[in-house]
Amino acid sequence: MEAAVQQLRINYKTLEDFQAFREVGIQELSMKEELEADMIENNSKSPFYGIYIGDRLIARMCLYELGTNQDFYFDPPQPFLELWKLEVLQPYRGRGYGEVLVQHAKTFGQPVKTNARQGSDDFWIKMGFSPVYYDAERDRGENPYVWYPENVEPQN
Amino acid sequence: MEAAVQQLRINYKTLEDFQAFREVGIQELSMKEELEADMIENNSKSPFYGIYIGDRLIARMCLYELGTNQDFYFDPPQPFLELWKLEVLQPYRGRGYGEVLVQHAKTFGQPVKTNARQGSDDFWIKMGFSPVYYDAERDRGENPYVWYPENVEPQN
Repeated sequence: MEAAVQQLRINYKTLEDFQAFREVGIQELSMKEELEADMIENNSKSPFYGIYIGDRLIARMCLYELGTNQDFYFDPPQPFLELWKLEVLQPYRGRGYGEVLVQHAKTFGQPVKTNARQGSDDFWIKMGFSPVYYDAERDRGENPYVWYPENVEPQN
Repeated sequence: MEAAVQQLRINYKTLEDFQAFREVGIQELSMKEELEADMIENNSKSPFYGIYIGDRLIARMCLYELGTNQDFYFDPPQPFLELWKLEVLQPYRGRGYGEVLVQHAKTFGQPVKTNARQGSDDFWIKMGFSPVYYDAERDRGENPYVWYPENVEPQN
């Protein structure tokens, strides 16, 4: 499947596109406020990546880099990517766009951690992710799935 | 409304009751494994609270205490409760059971933090919770809502 993943720019068009997605919350609101208050530049890079069909954003995910001091998942401890808000708009589901985004997340060569949504376990395993051994204090009710690049192991 | 909130015990009956809820994941799986391997005692206390109608668990939430070192929300920094997996079974919704659980969470006198589900903002505000100012590194795509007991303020 042909689909180009782009890092999204923070501007009013992107923020409007985001409104079509289910998982819209205070992160997007905060981006809007910062843009309006000139706290961030128009067209600055966002932590979101997406796929456009024509000029319509039909899939997105957020990739946020966390530092070594926040790494309780990987050995050796290192900066890693947390992936959230992976979502493909309803009419475009089942065509592999989600997979294209996740594969893109892996191209950075850093470990990736996500909180798998209810019923998505098979998808994450197919993506090469693994469930973790549950640690209450660390995982707090989440369903973490992680992807280990070469030479990276689970942290104990 | 008459409804008694109980702290749930970890046993096979509770784990079976949990299967009726949507948000079941590795936390519950881990409880089952620990029970099977005798790593936790049968009928030991769980971090879950629930409401029974007859012998049927119809609503639940998890309340997990985090320490001062993990408090990035409250001033003065202090141990606080993280609330997750608040859920009322479908046929029992709209009767105030969710509210009874949340009010119970507040009776411990500790600050409470939750990650509000999509579209639940009005519910949390009605419960006396407040949204936070979004901090990317701390909040990582979540929609945190918090409840401040007396003499507790937002942390900057």
